[in-house]
Amino acid sequence: MIRVDVSNVWGEISLPDLLAVEKDTAAAHAAVMEGTRPGNDFLGWLNLPTFEQTEEMRRIDDAAKRIRESSEAFVVVGIGGSYLGPRAAIELMYGPNYNLTRGTKGNPQIFFAGNGLSTRAWNDLVRQLEGKDFSVVFISKSGTTTEPAIATRALRWMLERKYGTEGARSRIFAITDPEKGALRQMATDEGWETFVIPPSVGGRFSVLTAVGLLPMAVAGVNLCDLMMGAAKAKKDYDLRSFENPVWLYAAVRYLLYNRGKAIELLTSFEPAFKMLGGWWQQLFGESEGKEGKGLFPATAEFTADLHSLGQMIQQGQRNLLETMVRFTPSTPAVTVGSDVKDLDGLNYLAGKTLDFVDEQAFRGTLAAHVDGGVPVIIMDMGELSDMKLGEIFYFFELSCGVSAYLLGVNPFDQPGVEFYKRNMFQLLGKPGYEKK
Amino acid sequence: MIRVDVSNVWGEISLPDLLAVEKDTAAAHAAVMEGTRPGNDFLGWLNLPTFEQTEEMRRIDDAAKRIRESSEAFVVVGIGGSYLGPRAAIELMYGPNYNLTRGTKGNPQIFFAGNGLSTRAWNDLVRQLEGKDFSVVFISKSGTTTEPAIATRALRWMLERKYGTEGARSRIFAITDPEKGALRQMATDEGWETFVIPPSVGGRFSVLTAVGLLPMAVAGVNLCDLMMGAAKAKKDYDLRSFENPVWLYAAVRYLLYNRGKAIELLTSFEPAFKMLGGWWQQLFGESEGKEGKGLFPATAEFTADLHSLGQMIQQGQRNLLETMVRFTPSTPAVTVGSDVKDLDGLNYLAGKTLDFVDEQAFRGTLAAHVDGGVPVIIMDMGELSDMKLGEIFYFFELSCGVSAYLLGVNPFDQPGVEFYKRNMFQLLGKPGYEKK
Repeated sequence: MIRVDVSNVWGEISLPDLLAVEKDTAAAHAAVMEGTRPGNDFLGWLNLPTFEQTEEMRRIDDAAKRIRESSEAFVVVGIGGSYLGPRAAIELMYGPNYNLTRGTKGNPQIFFAGNGLSTRAWNDLVRQLEGKDFSVVFISKSGTTTEPAIATRALRWMLERKYGTEGARSRIFAITDPEKGALRQMATDEGWETFVIPPSVGGRFSVLTAVGLLPMAVAGVNLCDLMMGAAKAKKDYDLRSFENPVWLYAAVRYLLYNRGKAIELLTSFEPAFKMLGGWWQQLFGESEGKEGKGLFPATAEFTADLHSLGQMIQQGQRNLLETMVRFTPSTPAVTVGSDVKDLDGLNYLAGKTLDFVDEQAFRGTLAAHVDGGVPVIIMDMGELSDMKLGEIFYFFELSCGVSAYLLGVNPFDQPGVEFYKRNMFQLLGKPGYEKK
Repeated sequence: MIRVDVSNVWGEISLPDLLAVEKDTAAAHAAVMEGTRPGNDFLGWLNLPTFEQTEEMRRIDDAAKRIRESSEAFVVVGIGGSYLGPRAAIELMYGPNYNLTRGTKGNPQIFFAGNGLSTRAWNDLVRQLEGKDFSVVFISKSGTTTEPAIATRALRWMLERKYGTEGARSRIFAITDPEKGALRQMATDEGWETFVIPPSVGGRFSVLTAVGLLPMAVAGVNLCDLMMGAAKAKKDYDLRSFENPVWLYAAVRYLLYNRGKAIELLTSFEPAFKMLGGWWQQLFGESEGKEGKGLFPATAEFTADLHSLGQMIQQGQRNLLETMVRFTPSTPAVTVGSDVKDLDGLNYLAGKTLDFVDEQAFRGTLAAHVDGGVPVIIMDMGELSDMKLGEIFYFFELSCGVSAYLLGVNPFDQPGVEFYKRNMFQLLGKPGYEKK
């Protein structure tokens, strides 16, 4: 299991504080698992993990194989969880530079589109696709969300111009509602292969549906391993006590929130974790940020940001809690060499591995931040693997559900997201949204 | 000039509030310009902008030309401002995918190293450099900062193995103190070409020294234009009244901070702006986050993060102020097409440009966030260009100095950054830091 170490929060909260919320934590956990509180129509994510390959997984693997073989680039069109989930997975597993060593058939580049309205970003994508054989997946429950819908129109036409309607058909995939919506209709009309977002799974909880699975499979993730990790997590993290790291994480961040902490800073010494931080931001921010409540989810990449946000973490407003994510060192190890002149004074590290230095940086940072009045939760993930990735997703999703119920809000709605859309539709003159 | 529009903050503060800090703002501005307050030995950044090409700029342009001609990749070794500044500039000007269309002599890829201790990230860099002709710049005032020093050792040896000591010499550049320090000594011993970080310029204010200029020039930025933009900004933003956007920005964020806002969220509808947000985070976080004070600097990319942090911005804790950065639409424009079936219901946008949709998304978001109780400062940058980039850097640097003096802290020190280093050195057994 992921190890959650809360031994560095006792300056802010006490063991009796923690024990005092044991019942509430148990109740919140039960509410998630048994679906007894508001939002219980969006608990489908609980049932996604599986020990056995499903028919949908087989079809996804098959589609991924065809995409890889026929394409030098693959475009994932989606916004919110349909963007952050797959991108987070791919960057964590293959590093932020993953596209630099891809771009051939068998090993396509993966681009994300439909997650914004920038003309520059769009023109850049078009330039990247120029002269390349490519395939596309359109991800949207409805098919009418403005950003992905615009990208869908444009990319579909690009493909049809390039390959003809017939040729484009085998290069277009849709992930959408099983029955309803514009994208479902379009896919049926055009004969695109489709995969399903179950109606009971919200966007930010969708990474273990085809939404995450298809892009991950194209990138090279083993879906069976991934899902086995998630399924094992579902069993392991069902423990109903503070031996469950989910309980510790949810309860401690809740207590620190109640003590006036305003920001949870998720930090990692692994740069490839950065986008997973973005996925986590949506998961927790969108689940908890309502009714005037919630910790603001921020992220930082260490050690880079120790030379950036480090000063503020150490001595700024004492309104932070920090969650430090760690992974077991990766291989091959890198060793610091010895230098005759030693002008840089690094010879005391000669023969030591970079991981050893990293470990001391972690320990030194932990001690410094705790001394500075920042309570730190340590999250030791263990070794990174496809299985571990599945576990991480499930762990955070469950923690988020428990945490939001503890906070007293519905983890599974997002009423506030509509406001800007409504304004935008009025300004755009969308039928049905005419200005008052 | 950059237009700072504070008309959406009047729900939180009043015009009399603003006028009440006019004197303090004037005094803070004067303190920066005249060097009358603590930190005045680090005001060298004020004198960097120049209307005329300096000898140093000529040498940088010349070195950049040689690097481009001889290299398929260029590695920038540095941490803190020596990393964030150049990376922010390159990503803003050339987009986050800039390396995907580079990698040939004349147009090298640009990698950043020495900004962390991750073994995975290091191994990835080595893989990226494999088989490529490359050059390196080592950036460090001292030459002994752990992260860049380790990368410097390793990259230097890689180059010397590949090209021999003689051959490596023409591929290694150093940016460091004009006289002191390990890197200066190393460069002198080895005969590397060097550029200067003036001792009076701190890391986070160094982007207009060779630190930023050399990587920018390699990427293709016109340094004369850049510096002219900064020099023009130095004149323009010297205005001593609230007609100065620097005053408006500094004073309003200070007032909102005093009203209890905990977080400043810098948002932009331009994805390429993301890393500039990272540079801004260091600039403001490290300058203001001390003595228990300071707004926590967070960033978001719209519209992507409207589907992520949007819910929390709209309805979470009301402890946010938002600064929305805008740019004039880029060309060529992209138009939404018409579709016979119109299943996605987008035909109402047919013939409209993506920029038009983006503009309405901006306006809709602004109205929604203000309605939700988030005061918003709008920062209209105008058209993006090399000149504008210079202006943006100077604008934020000056705003930061004025802002921190308003807050009553020294904008130019970072005493808290040492704590983790001291712990780390003890744990690493660095001579002179033996454990107590």
